[in-house]
Amino acid sequence: MNQQRSYRPRLDIRAGRIDMTHGSGGRATAQLFEEIFLPAFANPHLERTEDQAVLPAPACRLAVTTDGHVVTPLFFPGGDIGSLSIHGTVNDLAVGGARPLHIAAGFVIEEGFPLADLKRIADSMGEAARRCGVSVVTGDTKVVERGKADGVFITTTGIGEVPDGLDLGAHRIRPGDRVILSGPIGDHGIAILSRRENLTFDAPVESDSAPLHGLVSTMLAAAGGGIRAMRDATRGGLAAIMNEYAQAAELGFRLDEDAIPVRPAVNAACELLGIDPLYVANEGKLACVAAPEAADAVLAAMRGHPLGAEAAIVGEAVADPHRFVRLETSFGGGRVVDWLSGDQLPRIC
Amino acid sequence: MNQQRSYRPRLDIRAGRIDMTHGSGGRATAQLFEEIFLPAFANPHLERTEDQAVLPAPACRLAVTTDGHVVTPLFFPGGDIGSLSIHGTVNDLAVGGARPLHIAAGFVIEEGFPLADLKRIADSMGEAARRCGVSVVTGDTKVVERGKADGVFITTTGIGEVPDGLDLGAHRIRPGDRVILSGPIGDHGIAILSRRENLTFDAPVESDSAPLHGLVSTMLAAAGGGIRAMRDATRGGLAAIMNEYAQAAELGFRLDEDAIPVRPAVNAACELLGIDPLYVANEGKLACVAAPEAADAVLAAMRGHPLGAEAAIVGEAVADPHRFVRLETSFGGGRVVDWLSGDQLPRIC
Repeated sequence: MNQQRSYRPRLDIRAGRIDMTHGSGGRATAQLFEEIFLPAFANPHLERTEDQAVLPAPACRLAVTTDGHVVTPLFFPGGDIGSLSIHGTVNDLAVGGARPLHIAAGFVIEEGFPLADLKRIADSMGEAARRCGVSVVTGDTKVVERGKADGVFITTTGIGEVPDGLDLGAHRIRPGDRVILSGPIGDHGIAILSRRENLTFDAPVESDSAPLHGLVSTMLAAAGGGIRAMRDATRGGLAAIMNEYAQAAELGFRLDEDAIPVRPAVNAACELLGIDPLYVANEGKLACVAAPEAADAVLAAMRGHPLGAEAAIVGEAVADPHRFVRLETSFGGGRVVDWLSGDQLPRIC
Repeated sequence: MNQQRSYRPRLDIRAGRIDMTHGSGGRATAQLFEEIFLPAFANPHLERTEDQAVLPAPACRLAVTTDGHVVTPLFFPGGDIGSLSIHGTVNDLAVGGARPLHIAAGFVIEEGFPLADLKRIADSMGEAARRCGVSVVTGDTKVVERGKADGVFITTTGIGEVPDGLDLGAHRIRPGDRVILSGPIGDHGIAILSRRENLTFDAPVESDSAPLHGLVSTMLAAAGGGIRAMRDATRGGLAAIMNEYAQAAELGFRLDEDAIPVRPAVNAACELLGIDPLYVANEGKLACVAAPEAADAVLAAMRGHPLGAEAAIVGEAVADPHRFVRLETSFGGGRVVDWLSGDQLPRIC
C-alpha cells in the first residue's frame, strides 16, 4: 500500500454493499480490485494492474474456453459460484486434453450485493485456482442497477496448452468404442435443487464440483492414444453429451442402465421430483469414449484416482443412421434417451 | 445441416424470444448456437462445437484481457453492444502492444429477449471481428429468468501475441514524458447518454467505437521504442488513465486544457448536463505516454492514420510526490483532476 491510498478508509467488508460507483472505473473500482480481488487472486500478472496480462507463450497448442456462471443459489452444499467457475473452466480445458494455465474472470454485480459475499466468492475462486495450479491473471468488474442482475454473474475464460499430436473429439468416435463414466451422476443438480427448494434428505447431497485435470492426465497416460473424446457432464447431464456425440459422430449409443452409477440419495430425490438423473448436471464428472482395446486400461487408471474411484463402463457406440441414444434396462427393455427438450433445472451452473 | 436437424422447425428469428430452454444445454441451446452464433461468427474453430477451441501457439508472448459489457441501451448511435464488445477487447490487447488474434464470448441473456435483437448483435460482433482480423473461436450462452438480467450482457476475452522485447506500462513513465491523445474525447459517453435521455443536439453525436490495433501498430513502428505506455480511454475517461498512471508511476501529470480536443457538440452537451468531458468514456481513443524525443514522430504517425487524424500532445509527466493530475487552463489557472468519486455515467460500456 502506498502513501496516497492510505488516506482512504478501507472497504467495510462486514456490512458494506456494492454501489454503482464500484463500476465507474474510478477510485471505488480500483479500491474493490485492491481490497477484494487482488488479495484473493494474488499473482504478479494481476498486480501489474494493466488492462491485459502478458504471459509466456505456451510451448504447444493453445486451448481456450469460456463459461458464464449464473447459478442460484450462489452458495450451495459442496461449493459456491466462485469455486464452481474455476472448476468448470479447468474441466472444459482438461477434457480437451489441455493443461490448464490461466484464468480471466469477468464479474457482473448487482447494486446492493454484500461485499462480504463478494469477498467470500473471490476467496473461494482464489483457493480453487491455487489448488488447480492456475492463476486468475486478469479480470473485470461491472455493476448494474438493483433488479438488473441477480447477485453476481461470473464469466471465466480458461487458457491451457494442448500437447502436440493429441487429437480428441467426436470425429474420432467409432462403433464399438466404450463409454466410460467417471463416477455417480446427478449430485450437483440435486444439491442445488435441494437448497433452492429447501428439501432435506436423510443423506444430504453435496455438489460434486471438482477439478478433473488430474484425473484426465492419469487417463491420457494410461490410454496409449486410445481415448477418442471426453466431455464433462455439466448442463444437460450425460444425456446431452451422448446426444451431441451421436449427432457429431453420425452413430448411436447403447447405454446400460444398471451400469450407470447413481447414489441412492440422488436416485430418491430424482424419483421424488420426477426428474431423470441422466439429464441432471454434474460439475466433477466426465464421460470418456475409448477404443475397445484401451477401455480396461483407462478404467483401471480412473479407479486409481480419487475422482474416478467409482468409474464404470456404461455403454458403447453403435452404428445407427438415426443417431439414437438407447438406454437398456435390466428387464430387457429399452428406451430412447432424447435430447432434453425443456429445461428441468434452470441456472444450475 | 444434417438429416436429423432438418426435422426441427427453424428458430422464428422475426418474432421469437429467448426462453429458459435456450439455456438448458439441450436441443434449444444447440439450435441457438447453430442458427444465430455459428453463422455470425463463422470459423472452423467454432464449427468444431467442442467446449474449447484448440489454436496454434503464438510465436511470442501471450496477452489476455477480459471485459464485461453491460451498456444500455444495447443499440446506440455509432454502434451496439456487439461491435462495442469486440472493439473494446481488441483495444485492450492493442494498447498493451499485442496483435489481437482470438476472442471468446460469453452471453448472459434475459428470458424474453427478442431473437431478432440477439441476431443483430451477433451479426454485428461477427462483422466487427472480421474487420479486426480476429475470430470468435469459442463461446457460451446462459439464460436467466425475466427480471434477473437486463437484455443481454456480453463478456469478451481477447487473446493476442506481444512481440518479444516490447515492454509497455506505467512503470516505464518518467518525468518529462509527453502525453499524446489520439483524438477528441467524450463522443461515446455523450452518444449513449443522448440516446438514454432522448436528447437531441443540432449535430448528432455518434459513439467513436472503433478498433485501435491498426493505429497502435503504426505508432509502435514510428516510435523507435519511445512509447512508454498506452491505454484506451474508456470508463472513467482520460482522467482515470492519468490518475492510474500517476499512482502507478509515482509522479504527476500536467495537462493543457486548450490542447485537449473536444467536439463542440460534445462540449455543449457536457455543459448542458453538467459533466466534465475528461471523465466521459470513449471507445475509440487512446492516450499514449511517449519519451520526449519520440513524441513528435509518434504524433506525426498518429495523424497519418484515420483514427488519429486529430491527435494532439496534451500534457506531460512531472515529478510530484502527491501524484496529482493538474489541468492548466488558458487563463493561467489550474485545477486538480481527481479520480472520479461517484459514477456520472453508469453502464456506459
